[in-house]
Amino acid sequence: MDVALLGPRGTYTHEAAETFFTSYEPEFCQTLVDVFEADTDAAIFAFENSLEGSVSNAIDLLRQTERSITGEYKHPINHCLLAEHDDITAIKRVRSHPQALGQCQAIIREYGWEQIESPSTAQAIHNLESNEAAIASELAGTLNEMHILRTGIADSETNVTRFLILDHAPTEGEKTAMILDPGEDRPGLLHSMLGCFSGHDINLSYIQSRPTKTKLGKYYFFVEAEIGRDSPRFQRALQCLETYTDVNILGSYPKATPK
Amino acid sequence: MDVALLGPRGTYTHEAAETFFTSYEPEFCQTLVDVFEADTDAAIFAFENSLEGSVSNAIDLLRQTERSITGEYKHPINHCLLAEHDDITAIKRVRSHPQALGQCQAIIREYGWEQIESPSTAQAIHNLESNEAAIASELAGTLNEMHILRTGIADSETNVTRFLILDHAPTEGEKTAMILDPGEDRPGLLHSMLGCFSGHDINLSYIQSRPTKTKLGKYYFFVEAEIGRDSPRFQRALQCLETYTDVNILGSYPKATPK
Repeated sequence: MDVALLGPRGTYTHEAAETFFTSYEPEFCQTLVDVFEADTDAAIFAFENSLEGSVSNAIDLLRQTERSITGEYKHPINHCLLAEHDDITAIKRVRSHPQALGQCQAIIREYGWEQIESPSTAQAIHNLESNEAAIASELAGTLNEMHILRTGIADSETNVTRFLILDHAPTEGEKTAMILDPGEDRPGLLHSMLGCFSGHDINLSYIQSRPTKTKLGKYYFFVEAEIGRDSPRFQRALQCLETYTDVNILGSYPKATPK
Repeated sequence: MDVALLGPRGTYTHEAAETFFTSYEPEFCQTLVDVFEADTDAAIFAFENSLEGSVSNAIDLLRQTERSITGEYKHPINHCLLAEHDDITAIKRVRSHPQALGQCQAIIREYGWEQIESPSTAQAIHNLESNEAAIASELAGTLNEMHILRTGIADSETNVTRFLILDHAPTEGEKTAMILDPGEDRPGLLHSMLGCFSGHDINLSYIQSRPTKTKLGKYYFFVEAEIGRDSPRFQRALQCLETYTDVNILGSYPKATPK
């Protein structure tokens, strides 16, 4: 099975894929748009991080994809400080993805490093000058034969990313993701929509508003409910929701084990 | 009055500040954290864009600030293509802030330009090579005496950013922003909290969930309600909310004119 994911080799998505898939062929993509458009059996992408929140671009891409969410996977993020040498005092600048830099502000401020943003953590490693370090995964350090100066440098110990898996054939599981796009705004509408879930005793594990891109102040909602798509209770909630909003079901999938 | 804002000169925030404030002294900051920590009378920062959604870092900083939100301002974002010369065919790479790059994907894909991320749109202008262009504001082009090759290059015509203004003394207006931090998760809790608004006939103009950073799957909510803090209806809604959640009121301020 070939799987599209954000490259290059050594990204956290690569690390997650290595653990999640028992056997797979990675197809490394340059951007998240490419991951969604890749002609592969499946795709895996970072959806939400315990410190940074959702990858908002991913929600917009999910809204448009023809594929289904078929799984989720929670992977602990262990940020490492990587350099060509092992002298931390020689470092003046750190390179990494903006989210990774955002997650390591304590050590960056402590040492007074200048921050340089890279398109990915794994890409930050390339062309490092001698007074520069990268913040990236242990896998990236190993694959590129770098010195690992520090591990676990994130501000919080609870740094976990939830990845979603896309496939062509829809599945059934204990969680169901959907887009609610009411196409209008009036007082109490979100409250009424959420009443369809609570009224049928369905818990929401996640809700996120996103701009519809038509006008500032118009939003749609990404929602994950803790129930399978085929259950009678969900079907009743769906019938209720459809009196208020367009509903686009993105997939139903097994709940990941907590990290 | 001195006002902290994201620099350097020529950012969209600078453009917005030039229109919003009748008389002010800008203090340009390197990061959003610096804007919030600056020892100035006031601060202005981008909070939400009609294409990209909220600046999630801004919500986390609002949660911690001692200052109050005292105003909002909607500013149209007119992305311009800036270069040292006026030959668009010579361009191979574009530099800009990741959000601005994300908003101009149509023209970037049409010309096949390589994308390079900068910390800000205004900073993208500096050290451009002859085959590079920057995507930034018209003000940045004018201040730096650049050629403006194209204006209005964003994918959507409805590209508007909402800015928030922070000040020391709380004000009163038709909108009130707050953080709802329930500290627990149980089925129907968000529905119950929103019921305090709809039950008192208060419309929400914005709601955003953000991770509490303690554990993946734990969230707090940023909410803006279309009502003044001092009104009896809001005080009743607040009394209702406090039976479910911690409420941290961030400010009450006049509603911006629609763009």
